[in-house]
Amino acid sequence: MLKYEEYKTLVENYIDSLKQNNEIPSLLLEAMLYSLSQKGKRLRAVLLLASYNLLNEDVENVVPYAVAIEMIHTYSLIHDDLPAMDNDTLRRGQPTNHIKYGEDVAILAGDGLLNYAFEIALEAAIKSLDSVNPLKAIKAIANAAGVTGMIAGQITDIKASSKDENKVTKISYIHEKKTASLIIGAISAGLILAKATEEQIKAGEIFGYNLGISFQIIDDILDIVGKEEELGKSIGKDIDDNKLTYTSIYGIEKSREQAKLLTNRACEEIKSHFPKSDFFVELANSMLDRVK
Amino acid sequence: MLKYEEYKTLVENYIDSLKQNNEIPSLLLEAMLYSLSQKGKRLRAVLLLASYNLLNEDVENVVPYAVAIEMIHTYSLIHDDLPAMDNDTLRRGQPTNHIKYGEDVAILAGDGLLNYAFEIALEAAIKSLDSVNPLKAIKAIANAAGVTGMIAGQITDIKASSKDENKVTKISYIHEKKTASLIIGAISAGLILAKATEEQIKAGEIFGYNLGISFQIIDDILDIVGKEEELGKSIGKDIDDNKLTYTSIYGIEKSREQAKLLTNRACEEIKSHFPKSDFFVELANSMLDRVK
Repeated sequence: MLKYEEYKTLVENYIDSLKQNNEIPSLLLEAMLYSLSQKGKRLRAVLLLASYNLLNEDVENVVPYAVAIEMIHTYSLIHDDLPAMDNDTLRRGQPTNHIKYGEDVAILAGDGLLNYAFEIALEAAIKSLDSVNPLKAIKAIANAAGVTGMIAGQITDIKASSKDENKVTKISYIHEKKTASLIIGAISAGLILAKATEEQIKAGEIFGYNLGISFQIIDDILDIVGKEEELGKSIGKDIDDNKLTYTSIYGIEKSREQAKLLTNRACEEIKSHFPKSDFFVELANSMLDRVK
Repeated sequence: MLKYEEYKTLVENYIDSLKQNNEIPSLLLEAMLYSLSQKGKRLRAVLLLASYNLLNEDVENVVPYAVAIEMIHTYSLIHDDLPAMDNDTLRRGQPTNHIKYGEDVAILAGDGLLNYAFEIALEAAIKSLDSVNPLKAIKAIANAAGVTGMIAGQITDIKASSKDENKVTKISYIHEKKTASLIIGAISAGLILAKATEEQIKAGEIFGYNLGISFQIIDDILDIVGKEEELGKSIGKDIDDNKLTYTSIYGIEKSREQAKLLTNRACEEIKSHFPKSDFFVELANSMLDRVK
């Protein structure tokens, strides 16, 4: 297994190489890379690579799949920030895509990233076609990102409010679909590419589910207690909008406990199915440290 | 070979069956199907099925790919109609998606259709995996729809105006990418699935290129001479916006001649490579009849 930063470097290098593409109209490529190149955690890409690496060594061969899932995550942020959606002007301390390039270009940059994700993943799948696994991996990503996954969470989220009935059921659904889904997809895809057993894939998904929900609860907590300059986005925005969040239902203390419980569950699951699980356990715990 | 309406029925039946999907949030599915179910020509889907049918009989096996390309076409229309893009309120005589459901839902309905297209095509590819062809067909669709295809045409179009220099080069690029690209993709995908030779695929692409450009010129002409109620969209809109169109450069008469020339070229190409080319020749000529 590599270190987090080493997986991240594989992803960053691949993204850097995209700058050379001169078939994509320059404005479109610039707007796509503006958001894709912003230095984030690359969590989903790293999880895909590390999941593959649990069972296989040649991790550089699956980088296109990892970049694909990062492109999908980035497109969802660009569209999410649009005036008609969350209407955010800052992300990671930088102007959001539509502030920088205008709404029309931002919509197309998002569309471009979603479509390009499938292009690079299919390219890789065609090259390495020794089995059905590359295809199944792309399908796992498509399902996780799609209308029964991330986009399903998005639509439920934009129509939800803190005044809804069945808040508890609804917030679980939103967190599962909007956040955990793509994290689970990243892990499943890595394990499918690594030819894991059904049981191993199931364990990876349970890890991803618990990590994903915990990750979103931590994000909700940080939204309240974090400092604006530290996160580079407007604090307390979700409260202003009467949006449904975990913390608005349970308060900060109970949310923190819940994040801890979910993190422990995630770690137990991964430890009991993979001998080389340290990377995942440390990653889950380091996330929890942000709200300690 | 079947008749145009018979191919279309295969597509409509598959789309109708999607209503039963209860894993997709109901509002999202409703907004997706609102646009997808509107009775259009289904040109791209029919071209894919007919191209496959040139060399193979079991056309019902490739319907998911045809619906996938129709979903991609529909998502591009939904995003294109948004206030930040063309700001259209009517399409085929009906309120556009964002007028009916709001901009936020319309953005997600478009995203949903693009992603779902890859989900159903990948599902079909995994089921029928006897060769690399299903994968290559999905890649042909992804490339045609993507950042070097349709989306490339879109971004060039929204930034073009009738006051630009190099108008002739630019309008050719826009027509090739924005319109011809997905038509070529439909034909290539059908032929790849049918295990056509390289030479046959090339001929199909040349047919698609000429048909696609002609199709767009015809659309530009109809935009000026057509009647509002006949087309169900605002007439003369492209002129008001100072948008770059074929007719704004060459005038109606020259545009009509050009469409005729391109149609003839398309027909020659397909006739000289496929014995069963009548369907394609009749289709190309019937399009030209709209501006006779």
